[in-house]
Amino acid sequence: MLQTTLEEGRGAADDALERLIPPSTQHPASIHQAMRHSVFAGGKRLRPILCREAGRMVAGSLPAGIDEVGAALEMLHTYSLIHDDLPALDNDDLRRGRPTCHVAFGEATAILAGDALQTQAYEVLARLQCVPERRVRIIEEIAHGTGTIDGMIGGQVVDLEAEHSKPDLKTLEYIHRAKTAALITASLVSGGIYAGGNEDQIKRLRCFGQQIGLAFQIVDDVLDVTQTSEQLGKTAGKDTAAEKTTYPALFGIEESLKKADKLVADGFAQLEAFGGRADILKEVAHYLVVRKK
Amino acid sequence: MLQTTLEEGRGAADDALERLIPPSTQHPASIHQAMRHSVFAGGKRLRPILCREAGRMVAGSLPAGIDEVGAALEMLHTYSLIHDDLPALDNDDLRRGRPTCHVAFGEATAILAGDALQTQAYEVLARLQCVPERRVRIIEEIAHGTGTIDGMIGGQVVDLEAEHSKPDLKTLEYIHRAKTAALITASLVSGGIYAGGNEDQIKRLRCFGQQIGLAFQIVDDVLDVTQTSEQLGKTAGKDTAAEKTTYPALFGIEESLKKADKLVADGFAQLEAFGGRADILKEVAHYLVVRKK
Repeated sequence: MLQTTLEEGRGAADDALERLIPPSTQHPASIHQAMRHSVFAGGKRLRPILCREAGRMVAGSLPAGIDEVGAALEMLHTYSLIHDDLPALDNDDLRRGRPTCHVAFGEATAILAGDALQTQAYEVLARLQCVPERRVRIIEEIAHGTGTIDGMIGGQVVDLEAEHSKPDLKTLEYIHRAKTAALITASLVSGGIYAGGNEDQIKRLRCFGQQIGLAFQIVDDVLDVTQTSEQLGKTAGKDTAAEKTTYPALFGIEESLKKADKLVADGFAQLEAFGGRADILKEVAHYLVVRKK
Repeated sequence: MLQTTLEEGRGAADDALERLIPPSTQHPASIHQAMRHSVFAGGKRLRPILCREAGRMVAGSLPAGIDEVGAALEMLHTYSLIHDDLPALDNDDLRRGRPTCHVAFGEATAILAGDALQTQAYEVLARLQCVPERRVRIIEEIAHGTGTIDGMIGGQVVDLEAEHSKPDLKTLEYIHRAKTAALITASLVSGGIYAGGNEDQIKRLRCFGQQIGLAFQIVDDVLDVTQTSEQLGKTAGKDTAAEKTTYPALFGIEESLKKADKLVADGFAQLEAFGGRADILKEVAHYLVVRKK
């Protein structure tokens, strides 16, 4: 049941991305090839799956066209990975077991491919099948979740500044919440808005997203310590090498995982109001966030 | 009269940008400082002015809140300049007489500041004061005009690939239309949509934008040959140094300027349907595009 949900969600996201990103033969070809290289690198499609399951939970059945929201979220996630991997930032050659975008296509094209995925995401969101009122709310939510104040870019900035500086817990939490949890939250909330959720439902999805988003990042920190590059599909031990402050560095592995469990439980409590309709979303969230322990 | 229009337009754009970009003290401060460094570097605010005058022409008076569209356009224009100036792209140290963003703040912050200006632009557009139907149309129009197919990023890609390769006229025209004219067109069209223009009016603004946008870029090519770095506020003679194909290289300076004049005249013909209400927009466009001859 869970495997079917995940496979269907991943397949639907891939189909939408295939449809919504210009083909690799489209002029100018190099940019579309670079965009596709990074988008179709075998991601789990975590954000699209959370978006569609949030929408399904709120509406009671899968809302038509919701996978286009998921595709836009995945484009934004991928743009952030492409730029994060650049020599001036994390300088990573390997991502999901494949050469990163700038290694495969050169730095200039990689910068523009990231830019283009962001642009394409908003064009897709502006054309969603839901009413314009919901479209602008979704765009606002997602732009804020990827922005500088407490969104993804803000998290990237503070993360960069925190290298070699041993940030305190407050800073570490800001980084995790902004860099990762904010877009996960926007994925859930935009699925709920697309499905026509009321204010209470949106608020619950927001709280749920903040909790499981932080849990996801704590588990990610733990995996960086406990797994090999091969298992991760990206360079392992990077945080330790960069002397980054992480949850396991501050609290140890066991305590970190306990914190993650507590966050997931608190998140689930937010979904009680949805009754049995929350079961799939909970199962999916649990699997995606904590399975790798 | 013209000077008042330009000054008021520039002032209104600056006010809106000041209001809509987080203050430089806002955490994380470095990214907001970098965004502001590039946005407030003394630009002419060409796109916001064209947007507001298109809106004024369509509505008969200045529509309240239209300068927020202009601010978003200027954020997008500035993000493209920041990324274009990066070492991996044009590698420019000087822009409008000031150090470029990566020179002042480092490459990592410059990449993220560009990203953040794009994100912020869409958050602003999602919150415009016009009805949601118009907001999504404006977002679609602007995203398309800055995208890969025949928009700004497509033009940047082909421009990069054309260095040292002596592109033909068709390629050169694609570059100019996509890299510059598309966002100028989107500025005019989005002003028209904001003001509630009908399909015929939007179509006329689109044709007008395509003509004056191309003219603007031809004049820019000519200035690169005829002016000094000091006059331009950026490195002069770059196209010649990079052995780029340009209009003056293909046709000579005089013929290029004739082509620009013809484009402007054709563009003005599109505005005849607006009668005397087009006078200000024509005057502004003429001044902004061709004054520097």
